[in-house]
Amino acid sequence: MSDSLKVALLGCGTVGSAVLRLLSEQADDLAARVGRRVEVAGVAVRRPDRHAGVPAELLTTDAEALVTRDDVDLVVEVIGGIEPARTLLLAAIGAGKSVVSANKALLAEDGVALHAAAADAGVDLYYEAAVAGAIPLLRPLRESLAGDQLRRVVGIVNGTTNYILSRMAETGAGFGEALAEATEAGYAEADPTADVDGFDAAAKAAILASLAFHSPVRSSDVYREGIAAVSASDVARAAEIGCTVKLLAICERVAGEDGDTIAVRVHPAMIPTTHPLAAVGGAFNAVFVEADAAGELMFYGQGAGGEPTASAVLGDLVAVARNRLTGAAGPGTTGYAGLSVRPMAETPTRYHVSLDVADVPGVLATVAQEFAAHGVSIATVRQDGHGDAATLVIVTHRAPDAALATTVARLREMDAVRGVTSVLRVEGLS
Amino acid sequence: MSDSLKVALLGCGTVGSAVLRLLSEQADDLAARVGRRVEVAGVAVRRPDRHAGVPAELLTTDAEALVTRDDVDLVVEVIGGIEPARTLLLAAIGAGKSVVSANKALLAEDGVALHAAAADAGVDLYYEAAVAGAIPLLRPLRESLAGDQLRRVVGIVNGTTNYILSRMAETGAGFGEALAEATEAGYAEADPTADVDGFDAAAKAAILASLAFHSPVRSSDVYREGIAAVSASDVARAAEIGCTVKLLAICERVAGEDGDTIAVRVHPAMIPTTHPLAAVGGAFNAVFVEADAAGELMFYGQGAGGEPTASAVLGDLVAVARNRLTGAAGPGTTGYAGLSVRPMAETPTRYHVSLDVADVPGVLATVAQEFAAHGVSIATVRQDGHGDAATLVIVTHRAPDAALATTVARLREMDAVRGVTSVLRVEGLS
Repeated sequence: MSDSLKVALLGCGTVGSAVLRLLSEQADDLAARVGRRVEVAGVAVRRPDRHAGVPAELLTTDAEALVTRDDVDLVVEVIGGIEPARTLLLAAIGAGKSVVSANKALLAEDGVALHAAAADAGVDLYYEAAVAGAIPLLRPLRESLAGDQLRRVVGIVNGTTNYILSRMAETGAGFGEALAEATEAGYAEADPTADVDGFDAAAKAAILASLAFHSPVRSSDVYREGIAAVSASDVARAAEIGCTVKLLAICERVAGEDGDTIAVRVHPAMIPTTHPLAAVGGAFNAVFVEADAAGELMFYGQGAGGEPTASAVLGDLVAVARNRLTGAAGPGTTGYAGLSVRPMAETPTRYHVSLDVADVPGVLATVAQEFAAHGVSIATVRQDGHGDAATLVIVTHRAPDAALATTVARLREMDAVRGVTSVLRVEGLS
Repeated sequence: MSDSLKVALLGCGTVGSAVLRLLSEQADDLAARVGRRVEVAGVAVRRPDRHAGVPAELLTTDAEALVTRDDVDLVVEVIGGIEPARTLLLAAIGAGKSVVSANKALLAEDGVALHAAAADAGVDLYYEAAVAGAIPLLRPLRESLAGDQLRRVVGIVNGTTNYILSRMAETGAGFGEALAEATEAGYAEADPTADVDGFDAAAKAAILASLAFHSPVRSSDVYREGIAAVSASDVARAAEIGCTVKLLAICERVAGEDGDTIAVRVHPAMIPTTHPLAAVGGAFNAVFVEADAAGELMFYGQGAGGEPTASAVLGDLVAVARNRLTGAAGPGTTGYAGLSVRPMAETPTRYHVSLDVADVPGVLATVAQEFAAHGVSIATVRQDGHGDAATLVIVTHRAPDAALATTVARLREMDAVRGVTSVLRVEGLS
């Protein structure tokens, strides 16, 4: 090992540039904290001519050669996406380099294989920046809470959708209008699919569930609904019952007759305005954790952006650099519990349903009977008459999601029901 | 090393009992997470006859013999207080044992010596439970944010005082009444001095400042004011200006002409109700962190209690056990920055001052002149006349604390000022 630790940086976009800048600006502090200087050995990019701020001798288009270079100790990957990131990280790990990644998609897709490779090679694989940006979250889950049993992890982990839903709540706008505003303000990408349809949150949910429950969970295991179908009416109905609408990533341990399973899902939900997550506005992220002994915890901060993400990358970099010097790898992930993922249809959820009905005697009884027929117990009903019509606002107790969905489908077919004006799941009600 | 890792437990009160129970209940999970079974080698207590629930063969009154026993790998200290905890931990470290402690008083008093001893012996010294109970906080500061520059750490780190202040705000009660209620409810001890006078929070502030700024800070370096002087009037005045009163532990990096210093202080302060810390009610704890790159972060959860504290102890225990197996010690603390602690008199703060004055022309000018004479700039003034009297509510800009205190002392002597009805520092205003 040379006198300094050498870092190969893969990718030099918003996050990569911030990592480079911080490595330079804080070189002395980092050296003191690590115990040795940390230097950049090279920066792999596709178009070297677009990175005028990076010393030319560091730039290379041959990422594969860079990650396996003898003088490289650590590899930082901020390319994103599955390939070529996967091939490069496996090559780096195979060559004995420790790896820091911000790549949620890759970790959620292939975390098991990457962890196995890292364990075989005796190197580190850290990825704090992959979930909730700058918020220290994965390390607390992996380490601080390693002596506890987690019950539930519920997070607002996508800033774009939280910004859109916050604007809808503030202005009464519909989804389309709020999305346009988010795009204008730079909070949504030109193609907002990954955020709006919940793919980004689902990848993060898979990573959180894997760590929280010591069981392998992949993006494709995560039930996913985006926010494109959330209407101004949904947001208004939520406010009427003291709730607000958030896109939640929910990872729960569910007790069952055949042992515990885990439910992992991403969908919009109404939560009480008194819930700590309800106050998380704009592009902020927050994750709420329930553990047997620790009780309720919450972590809050900026979930995206070059600097915050770079802060998380550098925290990991200091950790793997220290481990490099002591010759020990940090704790890997463990899939020892091997809990299986429960199908969404069998996952217990609660629904809020608002109905326009004919204001004639017996409607409530008919509607209530439909819920009962599917084994769904009703928690609260509010009925408001106006003219010959009435509005029914129903919040259920927990029931298997399929039973709730089927009930709603049947309600839509009932003669007495003129329209279903809002259906959303409800979380966080006692 | 034997087939299992052996733990010596020092103390078996509320926290110790919870640690023992969790070690037993979660033995299989802990073994999977650590990679080896973790067993209790012995429990040192003063009165063995008072621990009927602990197997008799584990109990001992000879703590010193226990911590140096050859078969003991790890020592967990939950006695609290300076002695005999210090002697025992130094003996354990000297004998090559890794140590987990929940002892804020000891760490804040002698953390430097303990860390030095641990580094010399190549063992771990972890103490997540010492600050903010179950909230993962020290590990994020030590590790997750190790690549960032911290600006400020502001926390509600004492549940007893937060409960009392919350009740005062909710009911309008005075301090004495709210304290009696807290005692009744089990949130305050029979002798509440350590909590109410801020000693507990000051020890935690010293630990937080040491880690945040990589500089040694002891309890005695921390400026400290408790909440006994907070009146119902202070709480009411706070509400009038959109604030709430909290006992804050504040650790800040302050730029100065001769380089940076750190200001560490514990005192009641008004904070805006829109600040994330304002919503932290009852006996909960929360810590707000500002870092250059990460931006604003908040950590929230239960700050005390047997189970939450035991969760933090067990998280540390898993970490030091894993390190034991890999043969590497985790990162110690570093005092490399060596920043000195700024005297409170020179620390920039903001004051809120409410005055009863004679409602005659020129009073505001006279009062304003007094602030100006001490170099204190006024941010806002509100004047409400009633009869021949008026109320002046003044919030200042930042100025050296001594200048503010002197100004208030002079105001009290002014003929035009009939009474100073409330003086409190203000934090978190933009």
